Amino acid sequence: MSAIETLIGEFARLPGIGRKTAQRLTYYLLKTRPEDARRLSGAIDRVLAEVRPCDECGNLSSEAPCEFCRNTRRDAAQMCVVEEASDIAAIEASGRFRGRYHVLGGHLSPLDGVGPDELNIASLMRRLSEGVTELIVATNPSVEGEATAAYLHRTVAALPGLVVTRLARGLPVGGNLEYADGVTIAEAFSGRREM
Amino acid sequence: MSAIETLIGEFARLPGIGRKTAQRLTYYLLKTRPEDARRLSGAIDRVLAEVRPCDECGNLSSEAPCEFCRNTRRDAAQMCVVEEASDIAAIEASGRFRGRYHVLGGHLSPLDGVGPDELNIASLMRRLSEGVTELIVATNPSVEGEATAAYLHRTVAALPGLVVTRLARGLPVGGNLEYADGVTIAEAFSGRREM
Repeated sequence: MSAIETLIGEFARLPGIGRKTAQRLTYYLLKTRPEDARRLSGAIDRVLAEVRPCDECGNLSSEAPCEFCRNTRRDAAQMCVVEEASDIAAIEASGRFRGRYHVLGGHLSPLDGVGPDELNIASLMRRLSEGVTELIVATNPSVEGEATAAYLHRTVAALPGLVVTRLARGLPVGGNLEYADGVTIAEAFSGRREM
Repeated sequence: MSAIETLIGEFARLPGIGRKTAQRLTYYLLKTRPEDARRLSGAIDRVLAEVRPCDECGNLSSEAPCEFCRNTRRDAAQMCVVEEASDIAAIEASGRFRGRYHVLGGHLSPLDGVGPDELNIASLMRRLSEGVTELIVATNPSVEGEATAAYLHRTVAALPGLVVTRLARGLPVGGNLEYADGVTIAEAFSGRREM
């Protein structure tokens, strides 16, 4: 296969990138300055060479332990558990959480052969015994995320002095009630607060 | 900057890729098998090393001359002139053209400092004298593409025995009249054909 066809094919394997977009990206790289295109391939190689899951929390990082685990100014009493390392960036962007993280590495999905042993739950149990007083369950508000949250809740229920919380469900800010689905509106009703 | 941030930034420089998509692609590459991610960076490096503009027509290709210029079964009497090498793939997908191509390398855009000398027009004039009887102008149906087409028409008008044609404008197949813009509908009216 020609070099151009090969690159189009590789771009098209990425999630959310169709064949048309893959073509556009390939010809863009051919039109841009070669050093700029080389910066992209170099950044991919660097990420592959440097980035590893943090031994503590499972976050993906070039540092070991990761920037959150080594930061002593973050509250060790609060732990936020997420499905994927990429969720951490979204939570950090909110600026509302200053505790530690724990990355499960996915959600429970029996049909795909993902049970509790495939997720980083054993290391979570160990870390929870080290002075954590609140576990904030921030798995996705999807069927699998809810099932994973429920499993975590049952699993840690026996730990003394640990409060387990779950991120609120409701209408997304800036969203439109008209376009919200019924389940979200129902959650927004049952979670309503006095103004 | 961390390896992850660097890669997100490089992805986000690509056209049509926002920061959210850049994050998603970066974490996808971190989650996929390393050899798959390395195939993408390798394909970029290979394209940079191998692909060059064809000396004849300006098409981007790993071969010199390119696959269309070396293919003796393509009709040398018909030449299709396009703005970019990427346009050739779209025309080839239509299956309706079996002649040769010529890539201008852009369109006339005086404000951006792109005049006739910045486009591959001198080489087009030379090639037109080599037995071409029809020049099909397939520049984009945009203001700049039309201006470039008009300039080409004037420039080649003196060549004896050369017919210059332009791709038809009209409603895109599968499109919706309701959503078509007025200029397109006007073109569709003036180009209407007896059924």
